[in-house]
Amino acid sequence: MTQIIVRGYHLDGYQHVNNARYLEFLEEARWDCMSDDIDYFTQKKIAWVIVNVNINYRQPALLGQHLVFDTQISKLGSKSGVVSQVIRCRETDNVIVDALVTFVLFDMKQNKALALDGQLLEKLVSCQGKLAALSKV
Amino acid sequence: MTQIIVRGYHLDGYQHVNNARYLEFLEEARWDCMSDDIDYFTQKKIAWVIVNVNINYRQPALLGQHLVFDTQISKLGSKSGVVSQVIRCRETDNVIVDALVTFVLFDMKQNKALALDGQLLEKLVSCQGKLAALSKV
Amino acid sequence: MTQIIVRGYHLDGYQHVNNARYLEFLEEARWDCMSDDIDYFTQKKIAWVIVNVNINYRQPALLGQHLVFDTQISKLGSKSGVVSQVIRCRETDNVIVDALVTFVLFDMKQNKALALDGQLLEKLVSCQGKLAALSKV
Amino acid sequence: MTQIIVRGYHLDGYQHVNNARYLEFLEEARWDCMSDDIDYFTQKKIAWVIVNVNINYRQPALLGQHLVFDTQISKLGSKSGVVSQVIRCRETDNVIVDALVTFVLFDMKQNKALALDGQLLEKLVSCQGKLAALSKV
Repeated sequence: MTQIIVRGYHLDGYQHVNNARYLEFLEEARWDCMSDDIDYFTQKKIAWVIVNVNINYRQPALLGQHLVFDTQISKLGSKSGVVSQVIRCRETDNVIVDALVTFVLFDMKQNKALALDGQLLEKLVSCQGKLAALSKV
Repeated sequence: MTQIIVRGYHLDGYQHVNNARYLEFLEEARWDCMSDDIDYFTQKKIAWVIVNVNINYRQPALLGQHLVFDTQISKLGSKSGVVSQVIRCRETDNVIVDALVTFVLFDMKQNKALALDGQLLEKLVSCQGKLAALSKV
Repeated sequence: MTQIIVRGYHLDGYQHVNNARYLEFLEEARWDCMSDDIDYFTQKKIAWVIVNVNINYRQPALLGQHLVFDTQISKLGSKSGVVSQVIRCRETDNVIVDALVTFVLFDMKQNKALALDGQLLEKLVSCQGKLAALSKV
Repeated sequence: MTQIIVRGYHLDGYQHVNNARYLEFLEEARWDCMSDDIDYFTQKKIAWVIVNVNINYRQPALLGQHLVFDTQISKLGSKSGVVSQVIRCRETDNVIVDALVTFVLFDMKQNKALALDGQLLEKLVSCQGKLAALSKV
């Protein structure tokens, strides 16, 4: 499970983790929990392209806090999917951030977004299952 | 008007501006067009705290493109406001990103979000007017 | 001449611009003052690859300060060159940062560093002259 | 031991980890291996302020590589110290980056750099010992 400790360089002038930095944290968590499957997409030249992020900043995260992440694939549509992510503070168990991240799978050879069906959908459903299992640990 | 040229260090492995970087771009544009009014809030120890960002990534921005920004205060509620921002590519006139950024004004002395009324609301309405005027240039 | 205003998101937990951020500022200034010549290198698939940075942090830069940049090519060797950069605060005229940035020109087609001679050296000498002229303004 | 996996958002337009990002990596490694001692300095309002970084970029780091860090306090002078850091790629065992990071300890109450003597020097020598022991594992 991804864990990030809040460091001085994550903070901004308000002494909180800056709003932009959380998007890097969320991306880190997505790469991390998908690590077994990254090669599959890389080899096929398929990019995970973010088309929307809807992020709630619930509580500021402070220096030294341990942030833990829950990452789920919450929706698989015909052309796009949604990753649902929550960041909690391990010390307080407060939700720091929750976010819905909508993605398309983009074929970099054909230069177009792919339909999420057939073998590709199977792969995504398998990823979805792994992430769900991970969150039960 | 804020303008940012896309540099190599803004890109990620997909050769596009990374999704997190745009939140810094949007923050830069907000600071930039509010520059006359920053002191007012700083002196009163009032922080603009972001509580939600809903951002659409419409088109990738590429190396060397000139990004221009439109920043408006689109809503002022009793406790929170919304800044509406659009990033366009000057060369293609395409919308690259549009975003709704919901903020509260946080009193760092009293450690609480402020009601948007009275003198504070007047100030915000005045900012709103300046931004609207700016976008007509 | 490149100018960057220090924003809240540039600061870290010490309320100063973070040490890593200056390297982005220096890169921005290099791209900015080389803007007429970027295409030359891009078209030839020549990358400016940084091999060493020696950076002195002289004074902290604070929220709202205007940073101005002086960028010179201070040395052209047979295989590498040195860009000498100084960041000053416009308000105080203090030096904030000075840095020597050693680069090689890397041919991305042949996958090797290029000798700085012939037409390439002429190009670099011309860049050097432009930068020197710029700093006299 | 700090380990960072190279992600897409660490790369720049050349598909290598960007030169500025390494300074965040180095800062992460310093915080990480000093974690038991951070409170000591924080409680006394003593900031580790970086005054010089001399960093060699030996090899580009690529997507998916595991970077491991060696962090040592290589010198303790009367007013400043030097942290010596090396980043290696676990897969190739190549040195990616080595750096000397010169710091002063800055008293944020008195607003001045502290002499590295007495109890403070003892603390630093103890940190030095711990880091040396860590690197032998």
